Amino acid sequence: MGRVAELEHRVLAELAAAPGPDHDSRHLVQARVDDILRPTGALARLDELAVWLAGWLGARPAVDHPAAVIFAADHGVAELSAFPADVTAAMVTAFRSGRASISAMASVAGATVEVVDLGVGRPTDDIRRTAAMSEWRFVEAFEAGRQAVARPFESDPASDDATRQDLPDLLILGEMGIGNTASAAAVVGALTGAEASEVVGAGTGVDGDRLAAKVAGVEAALARLADEASGRGTPSPFEVMRQVGGTELVAMMGAMVEARVRSIPILLDGYVVGASALALHVLGASAGTAAAAEHLWAGHCSAEPGHRLVLTELGLRPLLDLDFRLGEASGAMAALPLVRMACRLVTDVPTFAEWFE
Amino acid sequence: MGRVAELEHRVLAELAAAPGPDHDSRHLVQARVDDILRPTGALARLDELAVWLAGWLGARPAVDHPAAVIFAADHGVAELSAFPADVTAAMVTAFRSGRASISAMASVAGATVEVVDLGVGRPTDDIRRTAAMSEWRFVEAFEAGRQAVARPFESDPASDDATRQDLPDLLILGEMGIGNTASAAAVVGALTGAEASEVVGAGTGVDGDRLAAKVAGVEAALARLADEASGRGTPSPFEVMRQVGGTELVAMMGAMVEARVRSIPILLDGYVVGASALALHVLGASAGTAAAAEHLWAGHCSAEPGHRLVLTELGLRPLLDLDFRLGEASGAMAALPLVRMACRLVTDVPTFAEWFE
Repeated sequence: MGRVAELEHRVLAELAAAPGPDHDSRHLVQARVDDILRPTGALARLDELAVWLAGWLGARPAVDHPAAVIFAADHGVAELSAFPADVTAAMVTAFRSGRASISAMASVAGATVEVVDLGVGRPTDDIRRTAAMSEWRFVEAFEAGRQAVARPFESDPASDDATRQDLPDLLILGEMGIGNTASAAAVVGALTGAEASEVVGAGTGVDGDRLAAKVAGVEAALARLADEASGRGTPSPFEVMRQVGGTELVAMMGAMVEARVRSIPILLDGYVVGASALALHVLGASAGTAAAAEHLWAGHCSAEPGHRLVLTELGLRPLLDLDFRLGEASGAMAALPLVRMACRLVTDVPTFAEWFE
Repeated sequence: MGRVAELEHRVLAELAAAPGPDHDSRHLVQARVDDILRPTGALARLDELAVWLAGWLGARPAVDHPAAVIFAADHGVAELSAFPADVTAAMVTAFRSGRASISAMASVAGATVEVVDLGVGRPTDDIRRTAAMSEWRFVEAFEAGRQAVARPFESDPASDDATRQDLPDLLILGEMGIGNTASAAAVVGALTGAEASEVVGAGTGVDGDRLAAKVAGVEAALARLADEASGRGTPSPFEVMRQVGGTELVAMMGAMVEARVRSIPILLDGYVVGASALALHVLGASAGTAAAAEHLWAGHCSAEPGHRLVLTELGLRPLLDLDFRLGEASGAMAALPLVRMACRLVTDVPTFAEWFE
């Protein structure tokens, strides 16, 4: 068994053993929203969200320390993008200096932003011709994603409870990587069987001949993957991610697994994050662990046509639908205040019984 | 000329004389978003919003002191609601004690919430049988709405610039009034010619026979209005509001006029606020002052079927579409963080030129 197959095996066992959402807390919050001081169902979507959050955060759900982690990487198919590859590195600098779009949005939403470098300046291989990464690199990226989530929880033995109050109670995963909507499209195409033309969009802004070249590139990657797999059955979600994904996509899948094991809810950003979520969902479904992706809520639906397909496959309805196509966690960050409101709307507002007693 | 016709005449003159949006600021922000550190158009809806805000708030738009004003009133058609009429007064108490849904949302969004009582416990007349209010009461409600906006700006002569920094830079108008979706439906039906069945929805939650009774009630009000107007042409927007509206709807129209004259942008809430906005828009259009409602942006589209019609008539595209049906400014408050983000996304993020210089 190869390193990746071995990791997949271990992860499936972890997912199967992970505790599900807390049904008691969910029921308590459901009972509360049914009697809260507003017409029943008047803020239905936020009530549903509060009930879901209660499954992970308890009967008085609070999102006081939301944390965004942006995974950055370079791609062998960067030439399919509207931007040159070195923009990835420039944007990482902008994130770290707090000058990027996501920084401005996070300051309004009250979230922290961290960047994890999965190999900026060290692009993956060209997925049209060969696997994006070695088995070794896949495992490295996956573990880096897990570590990004685990790190704040692996407390210094000297730390006390007071410092632990800052631990993230909700995660937002984001990404930056010139060329990565092509990788995401290849992953989604491979996992769903959709045609390249159905899953490829403008990304940062290609159209005409450049869009056609992007579709052809994803087609080539999918054809190569089918050839590789020929006679060996459908490639597993991990193998799909290794063959046609990118290191930031793999890392985000690792982060989602770690969050699932730790019962931390995740607010999903756009298409590239969605491709990783879909890989986790398909992995769980393949082993009868339908709940592998149960800790994911859709922040928004982007302008990428494939994103709507991903959300449908995940069974998720996005909070926002504003035609964003930026990535870098922006769609989820835009939706974060709604998540914070959903909590306060059940914890801070009395029920009719409480109000009129 | 009656008191209402006289007021309408004076208001039209004020609207015609009101300064338009600041085109220089709009152009500056448009130029900036075209070169900002993200793919052009990647956050298109928020960029459009920032350009629009610049027309009212200047070339470095900032929403630092958003203020919500909730107009509360009772209605002669309260029996058409799912809730008893005395819920209006109870909710006013909840708003004032900071325990309502809107209070919880405002604390996340960072807005103030004020309540203006337009006659809670002193319901308008039954619009199925007679005009909702006298000419005198119309004028009183309209002026109360204007005053609610003007008050913070009419500074104490002793106050200095420092205290003026807290002046509202964006307004959210909301309402509370058991029965007022029926009044809103009658206003929208009268202004657009739509059938009662197209503009009446569940409100706080009527269905079956009670929904049919609500449709019949609005039909009766529209038929009475048509009879009254018979031979005298289409009733003016002010007369429509007086005949089949409510005092909080009239007050919100007054607040919108005052905000327009003072160039203060307004983020619209739901169906009832939309009905007032539509009356202002139709009033402006009737006098060739198409820009009367130019300072309004749609926060959300509610679950009320008539709200979508109102937004179409206003030419507005809502930021959120979450099936809310609460009122009390909740849909606009949910959208407020997006407005704040739109500002920060142009003021805090460098352009490509600035970043790479």
